[in-house]
Amino acid sequence: MSEDAGQSRTWPVRGGSLPRPLEDVLVIDLTRVLAGPFATMILRDLGATVIKIEQPGVGDEARGIGPFRGDVSAYFMSINRGKKSVTLDLKKPEGRRILLELVARADLVVENFRGGVLERLGLGYDVMRSVNPRIIYAACSGFGHTGPYAERPAYDMIVQGMSGIISLNGQEDGPPARVGTSIGNLSGGLFTVVGILTALHQRERTGKGQKVDVALLDSLFALLENAVARYDVDGEIPRPLGSRHPSITPFEVFESSDGHVVIALCNEKHWRLFCEHVGRPGLASDARFADNKSRTDNYDSLLPLLRKIVRRRSSREWIETLGRIGVPCGPLNNVPQVMADPQIQARGMLAEIEHARAGKFRVTACPIKLSDARVEVTEPAPDLGQHTEEVLSTLLGYSRGEIARLRKEQVI
Amino acid sequence: MSEDAGQSRTWPVRGGSLPRPLEDVLVIDLTRVLAGPFATMILRDLGATVIKIEQPGVGDEARGIGPFRGDVSAYFMSINRGKKSVTLDLKKPEGRRILLELVARADLVVENFRGGVLERLGLGYDVMRSVNPRIIYAACSGFGHTGPYAERPAYDMIVQGMSGIISLNGQEDGPPARVGTSIGNLSGGLFTVVGILTALHQRERTGKGQKVDVALLDSLFALLENAVARYDVDGEIPRPLGSRHPSITPFEVFESSDGHVVIALCNEKHWRLFCEHVGRPGLASDARFADNKSRTDNYDSLLPLLRKIVRRRSSREWIETLGRIGVPCGPLNNVPQVMADPQIQARGMLAEIEHARAGKFRVTACPIKLSDARVEVTEPAPDLGQHTEEVLSTLLGYSRGEIARLRKEQVI
Repeated sequence: MSEDAGQSRTWPVRGGSLPRPLEDVLVIDLTRVLAGPFATMILRDLGATVIKIEQPGVGDEARGIGPFRGDVSAYFMSINRGKKSVTLDLKKPEGRRILLELVARADLVVENFRGGVLERLGLGYDVMRSVNPRIIYAACSGFGHTGPYAERPAYDMIVQGMSGIISLNGQEDGPPARVGTSIGNLSGGLFTVVGILTALHQRERTGKGQKVDVALLDSLFALLENAVARYDVDGEIPRPLGSRHPSITPFEVFESSDGHVVIALCNEKHWRLFCEHVGRPGLASDARFADNKSRTDNYDSLLPLLRKIVRRRSSREWIETLGRIGVPCGPLNNVPQVMADPQIQARGMLAEIEHARAGKFRVTACPIKLSDARVEVTEPAPDLGQHTEEVLSTLLGYSRGEIARLRKEQVI
Repeated sequence: MSEDAGQSRTWPVRGGSLPRPLEDVLVIDLTRVLAGPFATMILRDLGATVIKIEQPGVGDEARGIGPFRGDVSAYFMSINRGKKSVTLDLKKPEGRRILLELVARADLVVENFRGGVLERLGLGYDVMRSVNPRIIYAACSGFGHTGPYAERPAYDMIVQGMSGIISLNGQEDGPPARVGTSIGNLSGGLFTVVGILTALHQRERTGKGQKVDVALLDSLFALLENAVARYDVDGEIPRPLGSRHPSITPFEVFESSDGHVVIALCNEKHWRLFCEHVGRPGLASDARFADNKSRTDNYDSLLPLLRKIVRRRSSREWIETLGRIGVPCGPLNNVPQVMADPQIQARGMLAEIEHARAGKFRVTACPIKLSDARVEVTEPAPDLGQHTEEVLSTLLGYSRGEIARLRKEQVI
């Protein structure tokens, strides 16, 4: 597959016989849609065994979110690759009993229900810990399991609005713009993985598991970067600034003669090189533009000059000529353009997985490259309940007869 | 401090005597500005000892990036809290020798130079591994250490432009908008932390370290979420959509009578409840709007109706009334509003740190809440070289006389 071919040129360095770094980790995955599944996707890419528990006959809602290839959701496929699917009705006592049998053998449980939902089913952290003191229980919810909003429903968009990130995004004086990807879910999923691996590290010393509680709102708030610091110091409410950076100039998207190009200069050497290269060395010695602070303070005078200069050449010319003198410059790619980018290809960042019925899907691969471990994306997402019998018989020792009974009683 | 007060109501559950989860991890931190320092900030919040190596007399460039309180950068303060600063001139042989003495005693080295920079200084992974086979060497660079762009300079803005994320962000047919926070640096830093903790986990079994190579470009590409899947299936180039979601409706920012409000409905129950609540049950039974797919396909007919409805009440009224019936709705907060939010306060997400000269700074805290470990933000960022003598004498056993000589020779 193309993923393997891409990765073997680069990572892993020592070839295909390497271990998978989390291959000893067994995850019981109760998550749905995006934040939780994104977290367990990363764990799976890193080699963990992920058993996805789904409601019989229904499954993860993301199975019903388009676009579809054949009867398979490409959305579901991309974030559930390589996981196993086991159906289990947690509203039935026997379903809950089987879940706890799995928990007893696992390292992690991950869930992204609203706060309180699993507890009301009798499946809270205290119950799980009582069957397995080593279990790490990770909850990834909109607002976290404590505080006044703990039991409120939340989706990515609600959390984006509350977190302040939309107040920094989009054009100056323009209408509000959502960050163009579900960044609340994705950052919450990432911080959940960090929490899980941290708890695994601590368990090596203590022998005990613990609860990891990550909120999407907290996660996005932690990504406001310098906005809180700026407000804390100068009391000015941070606002959207289009494509420019609040405190670095020039650092934005410009119109070229045939499209757009990004020019981003962080230091005085780059600024001097740029001004000389475009035949305007006087700009670099102009007191209004002499250092980054002056350029940012005098942005309104500088911008029209730069716009006029950049409009003279094509994007490709800028990227080549500035690239040659080491001045940071790059294209403004759309999705097919970045998918075709030689660096993305060389890094094996576009994986191909094949589903038995629906055929091939291209998905983004894992950005973590390790020198002495295999990190790979090669398997498709499971069909609903595809591994129920395998897991029940192999892991829990259920007989064919027992499995048939459970199926008849719609427990699985 | 307010952080402690906030956290003690919620996390940790069992009080102040808990261990810090990464307290046994020693990090040698060669990072500057944002992506790398954000990664080591998370490690420090989780309890690792982080020794930041800085060029004598100059230090991390971020010390010079505003805004400032007194002579201290609030930007630098927020992402370097709790670290130790040691000055060391890596261009001098003795500086490099001392660095390798530190590496010999450490668990991790983290750096975010351009690919090839440390190798040319004789400080690549192979050298570090030869003095410490257990060392985990994490490199967080713009493009990664392999592939055709490996040695090119990159900043967040260049990577945002190349990754395709800007092609999804902002208004339909509007000018390009940067994601309003340095999401390339922040996501690269987060994936670096995941890579580090994964390598630590593997080291428990193998006893050996390895190299972790994370690219900002790869990291942002991995956050494109469903855009690659959508393009792969339908061949349409994904575009910015303002505040709406590409495949869920209604899921966006609306104008209320006095500002903005976010309404985000993911399932049919919420849609029915909403329509009944606003006295328009007919909308829910209208075939054009009967399910999420129909609502998304008929967005242009639905939107004007919804806009008219939402404009009738204030944001606060919507949040209260929809909240009461369990329909997801929330405010569009700016930075001071989210800082004052009761949930952010209850979760201890706003920390206060105090610098001896410059006074108090408010910073975002760590979103990882653990039941049996202390995760806390209480210490300020270090002054340049503040811990040079402490680290050289305590960790490496240098005498006062030797330290004085090194200072005279400008090695430290």
